[in-house]
Amino acid sequence: MSDRLRPESESTLVASAAELLSALRESPPLTHCITNTVVTGFTANVLLALGAAPAMVDIVDEAGLFAGVASGTLINLGTPTPEHRAASLEAAAGANAAGTPWVLDPVAIGALPVRTALAHDLVASRPTAIRGNASEILALAGLSSGGRGVDATDTTDAASDAALALAARHGSVVAVSGPVDLITDGHRIVRIANGDELLTRVTGGGCALGAVMAAFLGTARTTGVDPLTAVASASLVYTVAAERAAARAAGPGSFAVELLDALASVGPRDIADAARVEERAL
Amino acid sequence: MSDRLRPESESTLVASAAELLSALRESPPLTHCITNTVVTGFTANVLLALGAAPAMVDIVDEAGLFAGVASGTLINLGTPTPEHRAASLEAAAGANAAGTPWVLDPVAIGALPVRTALAHDLVASRPTAIRGNASEILALAGLSSGGRGVDATDTTDAASDAALALAARHGSVVAVSGPVDLITDGHRIVRIANGDELLTRVTGGGCALGAVMAAFLGTARTTGVDPLTAVASASLVYTVAAERAAARAAGPGSFAVELLDALASVGPRDIADAARVEERAL
Amino acid sequence: MSDRLRPESESTLVASAAELLSALRESPPLTHCITNTVVTGFTANVLLALGAAPAMVDIVDEAGLFAGVASGTLINLGTPTPEHRAASLEAAAGANAAGTPWVLDPVAIGALPVRTALAHDLVASRPTAIRGNASEILALAGLSSGGRGVDATDTTDAASDAALALAARHGSVVAVSGPVDLITDGHRIVRIANGDELLTRVTGGGCALGAVMAAFLGTARTTGVDPLTAVASASLVYTVAAERAAARAAGPGSFAVELLDALASVGPRDIADAARVEERAL
Repeated sequence: MSDRLRPESESTLVASAAELLSALRESPPLTHCITNTVVTGFTANVLLALGAAPAMVDIVDEAGLFAGVASGTLINLGTPTPEHRAASLEAAAGANAAGTPWVLDPVAIGALPVRTALAHDLVASRPTAIRGNASEILALAGLSSGGRGVDATDTTDAASDAALALAARHGSVVAVSGPVDLITDGHRIVRIANGDELLTRVTGGGCALGAVMAAFLGTARTTGVDPLTAVASASLVYTVAAERAAARAAGPGSFAVELLDALASVGPRDIADAARVEERAL
Repeated sequence: MSDRLRPESESTLVASAAELLSALRESPPLTHCITNTVVTGFTANVLLALGAAPAMVDIVDEAGLFAGVASGTLINLGTPTPEHRAASLEAAAGANAAGTPWVLDPVAIGALPVRTALAHDLVASRPTAIRGNASEILALAGLSSGGRGVDATDTTDAASDAALALAARHGSVVAVSGPVDLITDGHRIVRIANGDELLTRVTGGGCALGAVMAAFLGTARTTGVDPLTAVASASLVYTVAAERAAARAAGPGSFAVELLDALASVGPRDIADAARVEERAL
Repeated sequence: MSDRLRPESESTLVASAAELLSALRESPPLTHCITNTVVTGFTANVLLALGAAPAMVDIVDEAGLFAGVASGTLINLGTPTPEHRAASLEAAAGANAAGTPWVLDPVAIGALPVRTALAHDLVASRPTAIRGNASEILALAGLSSGGRGVDATDTTDAASDAALALAARHGSVVAVSGPVDLITDGHRIVRIANGDELLTRVTGGGCALGAVMAAFLGTARTTGVDPLTAVASASLVYTVAAERAAARAAGPGSFAVELLDALASVGPRDIADAARVEERAL
């Protein structure tokens, strides 16, 4: 990462991330997750380690109600059974009716028809934030069929136009995960170069970040912080914790354990010391 | 914890817990779990580490049959899909028909309508034991709408009347999990002050205890030990293991790993040394 | 393990296993899993640690399509909801139509009627490989009602006739997991004495091996290696990694973590040094 990513402007985001983290731990946001069966337990553990209060309420006739009382909601499409699909639509409506911020994670859309159709239905409901890898963001913007084959190194830049298009079209913050995370609301763009390749060797490494974004959005809502800053703060805290975990890990198994410990122990000073961020107006 | 919780009477429970643990390891109880998708893997690992034989048979047309041959059954309502709801009712009927002891864990009932209705249906089938936090026990007894907001420090005492009412009404042992666990059958009351706050920072920390209770009830049935003693023994072994794990953990991630190792290694002497229990007749 | 299991012929399998492992890491096979909700996360983590690319696509209208583009597919019957049952049949058809190798893991068949019927339907579609413990292989061959009670020490030999019968009947490679793994295609028989008892104390210890077999079959297909060698190589790499993990573990919790680290770090030399295999023509 070049020095371009350590300009003056980073101080604003770093300060906001530290404040949101402290506020989150002081008053744990009730974080509602409808997520895939592969990562449900890990996602809940990430939220608990960080200091948030997870609730995996993912059935019809409860998901919509709960989205209305939660601090933030995640809708992740990784294993979209009929029950999950109906619960996801119910949750999006419930969140919108109550003003609850919600995150859409369109896992593996593009080539897979059921989740792709659902993602397009959900994005029309204007999620507060959208998180995905470059292939997923390109597919959601209609610029690619998604799937494998996008080289991980190039993903963030390759998807920046798609991210801007989605932000403009749906009023959402869009976060593209990759070696450098890109986050935009169509007016500003943040790049975060923290993180570690081991995040891609643990299932849920990306999916859990979507839940952390929902938690930060919940806290931000009560403290008057804008969604772009909340989503970027979530990415920053999570990827700094990942770096600390990677420094202690011997492989992907111990990394997952260390990540949870690091999420529980990472503090404002650690974030300020490690942050490699760039924020620009467009 | 005051000396009040180290009376003479504790020796009975400690001795029973040690004997049940040894018997369980010698002849692993087939422990049937219908549990939520967040904690399924962790619950199975807790049972395996302890020495029990888990079987997650949670579909219609198998759950009832299997409850009839299992040593003990857990019905946990954490993610009650339609399939899980039907399988749960089937399992309760199958367990009752065969005399299999079963545990009801009414996760997050109160404000959430689907699981609340199901919990009331199931409790009418007279579970051998009911395990929950104070909010859930209050909600099941009809004394509260449940949900967040009950201060964790006060929970056990706040829910003791509800626990007694449920025990009297349904003939169940009722266990209220908290900083001090309270377990009653309506005739006797046991308080256990072991455990660690890290249990609340790992998803399934409480849910897995319900499965351990089902395992101990299975072993108790073959050795002629009463359900109250079995449920209290399960709590004691589990929370002593948690204390040993916490002493070695650096955070919630390593705690979960250490808990499994501790459940595999904890022995009768460890339990006798660490137990902080009080047992009283009512 | 006697010297009988270290004959000249082992060198062939060891060399093939090393080559397949290197090829897998160089070009990660897209490994499609329909597996049970208990082990989904652990299975994905095993594949990621090893170097494969997992994809848990387990819903109707996606599973068949995805089996057609995957490198290999696993169908595991551990928690066969109606959605999983339909997706499994769809995936088997999709895999066969595209020539994708697939593995059937008939978890706990025998006494449980729903999965037993499904397993018989699926085996008629001629899976590339079948993996199970001795009870399951006996039940699938119609030689036993399955379930508990088969002594673990005797399982491999007790099930060898059943394995040969299934191999002949369905043209499948059949792998019987136990203290000594037995793998046959009806023409040759391989025994692998590596592994550790801790694999039976972690949920998914066996189920994840089925996914590793699907990954190795995917790589083998592109490199012209026969299915028996691929399946035996998967068992060898996995059980050698398990031995390395067990040497560093303090119990079942740390073993699971160490297993993932060992799967990521185990190399050709480690396999050659540790292999205890026997291969014979029938």
